[in-house]
Amino acid sequence: MKVAVMGYGTVGSGVVEVIESHKSVISKHTGGEALEVSHILDLRDFPGDSHEKLFTKDFNDILNDPEVKVVAETMGGVNPAFDFTMKLLKAGKSVVTSNKELVAQKGLELLSTAEENGANYLFEASVGGGIPIIRPMSQCLAANNIEGVAGILNGTTNFILTKMIEDGMTFEDALKLAQDNGYAEKDPTADVEGFDACRKVCILASLAFGKHVYPNQVETEGISNITLEDVSYISSVNGVIKLLGQIKYINDDEIAAFVSPAVVFNGSQLASVNGVFNAILVRGDAVGDVCFYGQGAGKLPTASAVVADMVDCAKHTDRRKIFGWGAGAENYVVDHKAVLEMPFYVRTKGTESKVKAVFNDVKFLNRIGQPSDEVAFITDSMTENELSAKLADFNVINTIKVTNY
Amino acid sequence: MKVAVMGYGTVGSGVVEVIESHKSVISKHTGGEALEVSHILDLRDFPGDSHEKLFTKDFNDILNDPEVKVVAETMGGVNPAFDFTMKLLKAGKSVVTSNKELVAQKGLELLSTAEENGANYLFEASVGGGIPIIRPMSQCLAANNIEGVAGILNGTTNFILTKMIEDGMTFEDALKLAQDNGYAEKDPTADVEGFDACRKVCILASLAFGKHVYPNQVETEGISNITLEDVSYISSVNGVIKLLGQIKYINDDEIAAFVSPAVVFNGSQLASVNGVFNAILVRGDAVGDVCFYGQGAGKLPTASAVVADMVDCAKHTDRRKIFGWGAGAENYVVDHKAVLEMPFYVRTKGTESKVKAVFNDVKFLNRIGQPSDEVAFITDSMTENELSAKLADFNVINTIKVTNY
Repeated sequence: MKVAVMGYGTVGSGVVEVIESHKSVISKHTGGEALEVSHILDLRDFPGDSHEKLFTKDFNDILNDPEVKVVAETMGGVNPAFDFTMKLLKAGKSVVTSNKELVAQKGLELLSTAEENGANYLFEASVGGGIPIIRPMSQCLAANNIEGVAGILNGTTNFILTKMIEDGMTFEDALKLAQDNGYAEKDPTADVEGFDACRKVCILASLAFGKHVYPNQVETEGISNITLEDVSYISSVNGVIKLLGQIKYINDDEIAAFVSPAVVFNGSQLASVNGVFNAILVRGDAVGDVCFYGQGAGKLPTASAVVADMVDCAKHTDRRKIFGWGAGAENYVVDHKAVLEMPFYVRTKGTESKVKAVFNDVKFLNRIGQPSDEVAFITDSMTENELSAKLADFNVINTIKVTNY
Repeated sequence: MKVAVMGYGTVGSGVVEVIESHKSVISKHTGGEALEVSHILDLRDFPGDSHEKLFTKDFNDILNDPEVKVVAETMGGVNPAFDFTMKLLKAGKSVVTSNKELVAQKGLELLSTAEENGANYLFEASVGGGIPIIRPMSQCLAANNIEGVAGILNGTTNFILTKMIEDGMTFEDALKLAQDNGYAEKDPTADVEGFDACRKVCILASLAFGKHVYPNQVETEGISNITLEDVSYISSVNGVIKLLGQIKYINDDEIAAFVSPAVVFNGSQLASVNGVFNAILVRGDAVGDVCFYGQGAGKLPTASAVVADMVDCAKHTDRRKIFGWGAGAENYVVDHKAVLEMPFYVRTKGTESKVKAVFNDVKFLNRIGQPSDEVAFITDSMTENELSAKLADFNVINTIKVTNY
C-alpha cells in the first residue's frame, strides 16, 4: 500500500525510517500488506537525502494520487496542516498524525469529516509520544466511568524539574542544560509555560468524556515560578514537584481540566517518572488506577506510534474507529478554583502562629537555610478560592496544588 | 445485543455487574449498541441472586441461541472451558476470556478456530487483569521489534514480597496475611511457585513474537526460597526483589522466557510497583521502554477488561482482530542458563578472599547481623551456567538474577 508523509522534520523523517527499517514486523501486523512511502511533502530541500525521488513541494501530488490511501501528517501547527488534512479526508484517504496542536484545536471537525467520508483520523502519537494511551483510553477502558486523569505530559519540563530535585540545579541552569541537550527549544515558552501539556490535556479530556475541550478552556500554569526553596520544602515530606495535566469528572455536563505544578508524594507512580519520560495515570471506577509510562517525545518513539496508526489504517481500510468525540460546550470546563477541593502547599512570609490563627490544621515544612520570617506548610483540603481568601493578609511567595494521585 | 457469561465466580459476577452498572458508557463506546446478559452458565445454584431467571446449567442454551453473539468465558481452567469455547467459535460466536490457563495452553487452536469461523477470540483480561496490555502490544507497538518484556505479573507474590521488604515480615507471615486478606488461595502454590506468572509469560511471548510458547517451555521458579536476609542484603544497594516474568528476543527462531525472583534497582519503574499491583515493561527498538501499571487482579478491574473486549466484539461483529499468533516449535525457547548473560546476586558460606579468588570483580553487600562466615555479592555479567561452575566449591545459600530493566 502506498503511503505519504507530510513534513520531513524530526518525526516525519523518523516515520520514513521506521517504515523502511521495520518492514517485516509491519507486514506481520497488517496481515501481509507492506507500506511503501511514495511521497514526502516538504517545502525545504534535502540535497543528498536518499529519498530524493520521493520529495514534492506540491500537496496535490499526494491528494490526487488515488493509490495513496494513508497519509502521515507530521508538519505540526494548525495551518496548513488543517487544510491539507481536511482535503485528504474528504478524498477518502486516512490520515494519522503526531500534531497535538491540530488535534486539540480541530479534532472534532477532523473526526467528523473522517466519519462522513469513510476514512480514519488517528492520533496515537499526539499524546505521550510513543506511549500507548489513545487506544487504551478509547478501547481497553471502555467499561469504566473515568473519574480522573493526571499526566506528566511534557518531557522538557519534567527533565528540568528532575534536575532541580535530584541535582539541586536552579531552574535557569536546568533549562539551559535542556536546551544544550536538544530537549528544549531556543524559545522554550510552549514547554515551560505548559502550553504543550495543555494541548494534550484537551485531547485526553475529549477522549475520556466525549466532548471537545479547547485549549482556551484549560487554565494553564507553567513551572517558571518553581524555585529550589520549594523543591527543598517539599522533599522534606517525601514529595516532588511535577508539572501535571489534570482532568476530573464532575458530572456529565461539567469537568475540571487544568495544567499546573503539583506536589506528588513518593509512592505514587507519578513520583518516580524522571527525566524526559512521561506518564499518564487514568482513574476508572472499575479498574482503579492504571498508569502508562514511556518516552513522551523523540524521533523514533513518536515515529513508531505514527507508523502503528498507519498499520491500523492499512488493516482497516474499510472501517472506521469510533472515538465518541462530540461537540464541546462553553461552560463545560468549570472554574476549578471554585469547585475542586484539595490540599495546598503554601510558602509565605509570616510566622507559624499567624498561620495557625487562620488555618485550622496545617503541616509545617522546613528546609536548610529557612529564614526566620518564612514559613511553609501543607493545608487541609479546600478550594483554591477558599485558600486565597485565607491568605489575603499574607505576603505569599508561592502556592502549589497537592494531588491525590 | 444479547451476550452470555459462562462461570459466575468472582470475575463472572463482576462482568454481569459491570455490564449492568455501565450501560451508558458501554453504549457510547459501541456506537449505540447495548449489551444485555441473556444467559449465565454455572453448575452451582445462587438462590436469591437477582439474576435468577438468567441462570442455566446447560451450555447448549447458549450455543443454540442464535441471538447470543458474544460470550464471556470466566470459568477458569482448561476443561470444559476449551470444549465450550471451541463450540461457540465454530458456531460463529465471539468469545472473550480472563482465563489465562486456557489461553496459554490453547491460544493458537482457539485463535485459528476463531479465524476460520469469522469470530473473535479476545483475552485482554488474561494478563494484568484490568491493565491494558494485549491491545497496546498487538497494535500500538506494531512498528517496533520487541527486544524484551519484564513483568510483575502476579499480585499475590508482589504483595508478599512488598510486606517482606517494607515491613520486615517473614515469607510465612506475609503469605498468611495475603491469605487472610483474600489475596492468596488456601493452596497458594500456583501463585507462590510462579505458575500463574508462567501462563502470562506464555501469552505475552506468543503475542510479542508470533509463535506459541507453552507453559512447559518456560522455566519457572517461585519466591518460597526468598528470605529476609536476601531482602536485607539487596536493600543495602538500593534494590528490591520482585518475581518477574521475563522474555528476551534472541533471533527469529529463538527466544528466552522464564519466571524467577529478580533484583530490580530503585529508579526502575518496576521497583516502585508495590502490594497487589502489577506492571509490565516492554522494550521496543523504536519506542524504548514503555510500562503499563495497574491492578492485576480483583473482581471489578478484571471484569472491566472482559467487558471492554465484549464492547470490541459488539462493535466489530463483521471483522476479526489479527494477532499474528502462529505455531510454536520445540526448541524455540532456549536454555537461558546457557545463553543469557546477566549479573547475579549470590549469598554463600565463605569469605571475601575466597570469592575474590574465583570471581574477577564483585560488589560485596552487607546486612545487620551478618555472620562472619557468610558473604553476599553481586557478580559481573555472565551466564547462569558460568556462575554455577564458579560456585562449584561454595556452600551456596541463594542466588538471584539481576535485571537490567
